[in-house]
Amino acid sequence: MHSFQELIAQFVKQFDQQQFPQHPASLYNAASHILKIGGKRIRPVLSLMGNELFDEIHPDAWQVGFAVELFHNFTLVHDDIMDKAPLRRNHPTVHTLYGDPAAILAGDVMLVYVYEHLNKVQSRYKQKIITVFNRAAIQVCEGQQLDMDLEAMDPAQVQYDDYVNMIALKTSVLLAASLQLGAIIGGGSEGNQAYLYNFGRNIGIAFQIQDDYLDAFGDPEKFGKQQGGDILANKKTFLLLKALEMCNPAQRTRLQELLDSNSESKVADMLQLFRDCKVDAWAAKEKERFQQLAFDNLESIAVFSARKRPLMELAEFLLSRQQ
Amino acid sequence: MHSFQELIAQFVKQFDQQQFPQHPASLYNAASHILKIGGKRIRPVLSLMGNELFDEIHPDAWQVGFAVELFHNFTLVHDDIMDKAPLRRNHPTVHTLYGDPAAILAGDVMLVYVYEHLNKVQSRYKQKIITVFNRAAIQVCEGQQLDMDLEAMDPAQVQYDDYVNMIALKTSVLLAASLQLGAIIGGGSEGNQAYLYNFGRNIGIAFQIQDDYLDAFGDPEKFGKQQGGDILANKKTFLLLKALEMCNPAQRTRLQELLDSNSESKVADMLQLFRDCKVDAWAAKEKERFQQLAFDNLESIAVFSARKRPLMELAEFLLSRQQ
Repeated sequence: MHSFQELIAQFVKQFDQQQFPQHPASLYNAASHILKIGGKRIRPVLSLMGNELFDEIHPDAWQVGFAVELFHNFTLVHDDIMDKAPLRRNHPTVHTLYGDPAAILAGDVMLVYVYEHLNKVQSRYKQKIITVFNRAAIQVCEGQQLDMDLEAMDPAQVQYDDYVNMIALKTSVLLAASLQLGAIIGGGSEGNQAYLYNFGRNIGIAFQIQDDYLDAFGDPEKFGKQQGGDILANKKTFLLLKALEMCNPAQRTRLQELLDSNSESKVADMLQLFRDCKVDAWAAKEKERFQQLAFDNLESIAVFSARKRPLMELAEFLLSRQQ
Repeated sequence: MHSFQELIAQFVKQFDQQQFPQHPASLYNAASHILKIGGKRIRPVLSLMGNELFDEIHPDAWQVGFAVELFHNFTLVHDDIMDKAPLRRNHPTVHTLYGDPAAILAGDVMLVYVYEHLNKVQSRYKQKIITVFNRAAIQVCEGQQLDMDLEAMDPAQVQYDDYVNMIALKTSVLLAASLQLGAIIGGGSEGNQAYLYNFGRNIGIAFQIQDDYLDAFGDPEKFGKQQGGDILANKKTFLLLKALEMCNPAQRTRLQELLDSNSESKVADMLQLFRDCKVDAWAAKEKERFQQLAFDNLESIAVFSARKRPLMELAEFLLSRQQ
């Protein structure tokens, strides 16, 4: 058994040795850029841990790890084009450096390479691996489209459940599938695979609620982002959508005014309104609820609890950020 | 045995029954649009014919056919964004109708669905199928990048061989791989697969030379395009690049003047120059040369020649356009 920290270190070492071809340089330099600027490498480590929950790590788990990490980075390259984002992890985005055409194409070729890795796993579970992976990949695309659809809507028209569904598709199903893919390789039963998948999905949602909460209420110095960035951008978040649901008519009018305003006190005023609606307390509870659901899923997996410890530790690490 | 016309009709019927999910409509309407505006469906029919060259058509050949046709359409969606093309097959392009973000995403999800089809083929040759498909898919991406790289260069700086290599990657390897994928399913030997692959590759190059020739010298009424469209756009073609190689210094100066000019007689003047350099006669011979290479490849395949007749007929159909 390995801790998640050990697995991240091992994965980073192996992943950094993967190389695209040299030519055409204009294509592969663009693809390499997004990989070089780093990232937490959480998804591939989930695959390794999903494997190790049931058995020793098999070489196929590394291939699946390369695949899910490459896929995640492909989505970042294309999402950044769609969002016209200038920066990613404090570096210029691929399309900023290489132009939209090369960035589109770099993403495309990365997606083909994803399947080069998946094609290397053993025949006996290759069909299942590609089926589970593809379901997640399709859902991630659908989630990104739903995100753009919701962004174009008036916040008051967005249903909370639709937002949770979008977040689950866009961010959580790949975490869930990464775990399940590892479990398939480790020989976990269908039932245990499902528990593990749901564990990942619920952790992902809890993490997103925490992320929204910290953007609003976190200490900007510790959180590393501008406080209230989401509020300034009128971004739809768990907090904003739930506030719209929980507030009284007067608060709702005030909220709409704040959305339309660009005053200097916009962040402070919105935070006060969130507190008045008690949406800050709600968010803490909602995160707790999804976290508890995840831990129940993990509890249900039929292996000795000692084997679950690394996953528990990773979940607690991800969900313990106070700032 | 079936004629290529019969197989096209059968494929169109089956392909039109394939449906994307309904939701999110904004994603799948964009993906469906490119499929609805038609196309010759040559690539999937090559897979069916590659199979039938060796054995009765197996259900897996249809899955491979769906995959290669979907992949081809995915490349059209993304290429049209990169080229900022307003029209495709006389219809508005996907990004014109749905915007760049939805078009990027529609292409992405189509590429994932490609592998849904490939994942349905039998386990015993799945690895080989995905390997051959991926090699072609990667080469198509590389070819598109090389095309953009060459477009940005001065025509006089482009080497003819680099251009042929780009065309082969961008357009011919998918034709070649479509045939080979069918041959794998039909049980063709490695040697026969290689001959069939090269047959497709050479037919593809011959077709592109013919296309360039007809754009310049074809009868616009029969060819269905504006005559000299490539010349007006200073597009790099077999004719232009070979003219630069074959012309004398005086002709070269004249050619450079014409490239820099926008006069009304530009097309007529360039055609005269092409004739003076004898590049029209060269193109006819060069097409003939690749066609002969292709027929030699077909000849080398170790099956009764009667089985090769449909492929021969398709090649002659594709390469017999006089206008």
